[in-house]
Amino acid sequence: MNKLKILFLPHNIETTVTRGENLIRAAMEAGVHINASCGGEGVCGKCRVIIEKGAVEGGISEKLSTEDLNKGYRQACLADVKSDLVVRIPIESEVDAGILNLQTTPRRTARIWEMNLEDLKDKGLFIPPVEKRYLQVPEPTLQDNLPDVTRLVSFLKAKHDEHRLVVRLPVIRKIPDILRKDGFRVTATLARPVQSGRKTHIINVQPGDTTDRNYAVAVDIGTTTVYGQLVDLKTGGVLAQFGDYNGQISYGEDVISRIIYAGKPEGLQKLHEVIINTINKLIKKMVKRARIDLDEISTITMAGNTTMTQLMLKINPQYIRLSPYVPASTLYPPINAVELGLALGDHVTALVYPAVSSYVGGDIVAGVMGSGMYRTEDLTLFMDIGTNAEIVIGNKDWLACASCSAGPAFEGGGVKFGMRAAKGAIEDFSMDPVTFEPMNITIGNVRPKGICGSGLIIITATLFEMGVIDNRGKFNRDLDTPRVRETDGIFEYVLAWKDETEIGRDIALTEPDLDNLMRAKGAIYSGCITLLEEVGLTMQDIDQIYLAGGFGSYVDLEKAMVIGLLPEIDPDRVRFIGNGSLMGAKMSSLTNRIRKDVVEVTKRMTNFELSETPSFMDNYVAALFLPHTDMDQFPKLKGRLEARKALKVKNPCTEDPALVPPQGGETCQPE
Amino acid sequence: MNKLKILFLPHNIETTVTRGENLIRAAMEAGVHINASCGGEGVCGKCRVIIEKGAVEGGISEKLSTEDLNKGYRQACLADVKSDLVVRIPIESEVDAGILNLQTTPRRTARIWEMNLEDLKDKGLFIPPVEKRYLQVPEPTLQDNLPDVTRLVSFLKAKHDEHRLVVRLPVIRKIPDILRKDGFRVTATLARPVQSGRKTHIINVQPGDTTDRNYAVAVDIGTTTVYGQLVDLKTGGVLAQFGDYNGQISYGEDVISRIIYAGKPEGLQKLHEVIINTINKLIKKMVKRARIDLDEISTITMAGNTTMTQLMLKINPQYIRLSPYVPASTLYPPINAVELGLALGDHVTALVYPAVSSYVGGDIVAGVMGSGMYRTEDLTLFMDIGTNAEIVIGNKDWLACASCSAGPAFEGGGVKFGMRAAKGAIEDFSMDPVTFEPMNITIGNVRPKGICGSGLIIITATLFEMGVIDNRGKFNRDLDTPRVRETDGIFEYVLAWKDETEIGRDIALTEPDLDNLMRAKGAIYSGCITLLEEVGLTMQDIDQIYLAGGFGSYVDLEKAMVIGLLPEIDPDRVRFIGNGSLMGAKMSSLTNRIRKDVVEVTKRMTNFELSETPSFMDNYVAALFLPHTDMDQFPKLKGRLEARKALKVKNPCTEDPALVPPQGGETCQPE
Repeated sequence: MNKLKILFLPHNIETTVTRGENLIRAAMEAGVHINASCGGEGVCGKCRVIIEKGAVEGGISEKLSTEDLNKGYRQACLADVKSDLVVRIPIESEVDAGILNLQTTPRRTARIWEMNLEDLKDKGLFIPPVEKRYLQVPEPTLQDNLPDVTRLVSFLKAKHDEHRLVVRLPVIRKIPDILRKDGFRVTATLARPVQSGRKTHIINVQPGDTTDRNYAVAVDIGTTTVYGQLVDLKTGGVLAQFGDYNGQISYGEDVISRIIYAGKPEGLQKLHEVIINTINKLIKKMVKRARIDLDEISTITMAGNTTMTQLMLKINPQYIRLSPYVPASTLYPPINAVELGLALGDHVTALVYPAVSSYVGGDIVAGVMGSGMYRTEDLTLFMDIGTNAEIVIGNKDWLACASCSAGPAFEGGGVKFGMRAAKGAIEDFSMDPVTFEPMNITIGNVRPKGICGSGLIIITATLFEMGVIDNRGKFNRDLDTPRVRETDGIFEYVLAWKDETEIGRDIALTEPDLDNLMRAKGAIYSGCITLLEEVGLTMQDIDQIYLAGGFGSYVDLEKAMVIGLLPEIDPDRVRFIGNGSLMGAKMSSLTNRIRKDVVEVTKRMTNFELSETPSFMDNYVAALFLPHTDMDQFPKLKGRLEARKALKVKNPCTEDPALVPPQGGETCQPE
Repeated sequence: MNKLKILFLPHNIETTVTRGENLIRAAMEAGVHINASCGGEGVCGKCRVIIEKGAVEGGISEKLSTEDLNKGYRQACLADVKSDLVVRIPIESEVDAGILNLQTTPRRTARIWEMNLEDLKDKGLFIPPVEKRYLQVPEPTLQDNLPDVTRLVSFLKAKHDEHRLVVRLPVIRKIPDILRKDGFRVTATLARPVQSGRKTHIINVQPGDTTDRNYAVAVDIGTTTVYGQLVDLKTGGVLAQFGDYNGQISYGEDVISRIIYAGKPEGLQKLHEVIINTINKLIKKMVKRARIDLDEISTITMAGNTTMTQLMLKINPQYIRLSPYVPASTLYPPINAVELGLALGDHVTALVYPAVSSYVGGDIVAGVMGSGMYRTEDLTLFMDIGTNAEIVIGNKDWLACASCSAGPAFEGGGVKFGMRAAKGAIEDFSMDPVTFEPMNITIGNVRPKGICGSGLIIITATLFEMGVIDNRGKFNRDLDTPRVRETDGIFEYVLAWKDETEIGRDIALTEPDLDNLMRAKGAIYSGCITLLEEVGLTMQDIDQIYLAGGFGSYVDLEKAMVIGLLPEIDPDRVRFIGNGSLMGAKMSSLTNRIRKDVVEVTKRMTNFELSETPSFMDNYVAALFLPHTDMDQFPKLKGRLEARKALKVKNPCTEDPALVPPQGGETCQPE
């Protein structure tokens, strides 16, 4: 990785980037605002910068005259960094550098964190669930003609100190021929008991010595996407990983429509087959990619929400949907993989993560297990944010959990120009505090199509801190900018004009969008508060946050705290654990310690039905503000806003603290 | 049962029979000889008797003139007893009544004996493996929305003191809907652990109260025939029983040819499917006959020889046939019945009886378990006689077992006119000691077609005791009777002349037939002796004999001792346990005590490979005589023969004790 330095002027901010980084993204990361409406595709031509020292590749377009080029102007969004640079941002209005420095903060995403085999070993948690033993068994004679199975078992006892062994029929069927394939030299695969004192199963026999090949499959069954990992049980390494859409999508986008489909004749059978088929395709791809023999896969672990799990197991999910929302079961026994229709050897047992309730499923339990949250001293807030947000709060002593319906705002639903995190989605944003001009960055650096969840949080937080919206999510009606306007009685902020977008329409964020966002974040925050209240704690007691799910990796933590989605906490105390469900499934493949702990932990996870918890609604109403009615819960933000309020301005526009520009300089809020 | 008395003259023997009994069978049972060649069909006309008092039905034919009828003559084989009778047998030669009384002994078959539920209860052995519990579970509410499975399990814990419960996937799948079918009133079927301290499985749930319906299936998988019993688990009673040919017969008559077929491509799969199909047909018939619901069957237990068991389980049996004769396994885990292809509910676990070795299979273990032999103080000889004879000797402290190839003599093979025990087979026989005329009784009272195994033993023993053959199985060449003759250099005794038979040929017993019979009984006896020697005992130490298998029920015990098939023992100490395999399977359905004991008992059953035991061949050679080289092993017979020898005869023919007629009268052995 070739690291290069960029000095941004007049801000005097230095940053380090990787060679080839896009210049406008480098600016955004550094917290330097450059006007840019078109998402980085070069069409708006607003992101003109002057390269005062060093060289970039590209950055030239018909928007720049020869004279401009000679002066060193380039379009930042089209320029890639090729050397150390000094870059000057042409400032159109007279503003103090102090304001420049504060207009945007560097994006702070959560630290990515994953447990691995070495961690487990270091922590003394490594108890391999499946092991291989190479055996050179003496051949039978007329004087010693023990049954084949007895011969094998006795040998394991006598020579390998293996006791309490069990052999099931599929393995018994294999043993006679396999023993004789290579002169009674075989490798036995032993599945260890999860509970001590239970029996070890001989789950496979293979001719010769195959002890160097022993693999596991981990699967996260999401409502939308399914991910698989092929894990090397000797090293803990991931040999292959694939994701695919859950084939059930054709039968309904969300959990509820799947449940309804499952209620139709043959519906459950169909959905069961389809998800098994999706998993089988992933297994096939992974086996091919890693170039291993399917027979060397010894175990599979799966995790999913309660409905996905029941559909995969072919258990009628109707009662999950109907009051009083009862799942069939939350603990699932180990199941023969073949019995489920999985394309694995008949020796493979499938482990399925237990659930806590209808709406706190095995995916969340897997996240709790995989993240090690259940073993930590620190009071931890675990969140998996989607249409439903699942929250777990606790530590090694207690765990409380709940699910709340956040609505689809974070996935682009209920937002006029909302979209999933795909190409063309505005994912990052800053705003000139004087002109209110935006700096949009889209996924793929193309013309904007819409706004994704992480973009939505950043835009909302920025508009709020810059005073464009107030703490109720209402626009300041008095701003002198065409970007804030009223259309058909609805106020909105125009992020990109139609000729700069992919869709040929102005892309704007509206007050109803802000309402939906506040409802979503309010429900989640209220869920957390309510859980904490039930155990006599407050948000201020939270020591750390674990964010799970795809959403979590892109969230700008500071901005999420500004809108009141996350409690205020040192961003270093926030960890992104990625796909917690997949991680938990993988961890279970690697150590029986997790398999053993999970049942006890699941029982320990106290579920709260928020709809049945009276204080939830009060907490929700209180959270329907930016960031919250009670600003004392956000002391840092409160401090910043108060500092702004105290800031001397050349032309004080308003007394509303939310509308006061940032501290450290003098500027004007236009009337 | 209407009992009637018959006094036979001049023998002065009184006997009691059931009204309607055939008169010639009554005579045979009483030990009264009446000449009769035609098997009881009335064609030879030799069985003329005089009814001196009382009345018979029938007995009239064209063989009797009006004068005869007026004198009271009837044909015994056509006459049924209708009142108390005095019957005179016309004696053609002058013989003493003492001789008459001894010429034949009443047939002594083994006492039939079967264990039942009451016995088990009396002995404190009744531990039901499967029980039903009717539960009125409270319905869930929003305040109490436990998962369905947890609700059920918790209720069983709290209200029925049931702990350590396990629920497998097929049951989890049922629970949600079944709970709601009848307002959370359900019957749970609980399968108890065999080992104490293990878990109880909830194997089924049914709506409403079905506790009065709980059934088991027991199956004996024979090489030729398969028997099934439907057992009521509440009463221990048998609700239906059916037998059918093993469908595998089309692929080979015996074990070896089946193993060879199994080695062909798809051969094992085919034989597996065919036997499962046979069992399924039996289950279907039984369910229909007993008019029960298939879903009420809670368990199935199967027993068969090692090859049949491996074929049923689809385990390659090749190595059973090849030296060193190694079975795949002798212990089989419980298996889901559906997984085997059995047409039972998916909640049903199949138990398969363990084997001891390749040639002492689960059928024998089942017999040992079902008979209770493994719990007795008495030294017991257990025999299951077929083409292979399996022998178990021991008691509650030790068990030794072996299999020996007896050849097919007892099943009609290797005997010129041998046949299976079917219609027309001579099954009973006596002989006039003076004229050597036979009294044949056939199965079905029809003209004879051949000789079945039990008939063969009786004929051979009679010929030997009457001096027609010597202890080497050779005919006395000097007898003055056309029935003993030489044809093509082979001596034989003609049982029925061709015009009296069904087949239009003389039916005879030949010296080669006798050789085969002696080899068969010699192998079995030698097997017993050899096992006893290995543990330092002799035949005289045997306290009791258990005879298993269809053959055992018809064997005349005294005659079997005369030929040296069985050791000399009080016939009251011989029990016929019938189909020991089926009985053991049934017992396992009724009590976990058997299921628990069987593994330990099987391990305790020390197998001897007779071909590898040096003394076996010496013992075999010594047993190739009637009854044995060492007459001291048959003291009662020795006494009888010596008494005969000492008996004054008018015309002493020979010094050979075997040729001396019975004691108690004077008669002549013709020269």
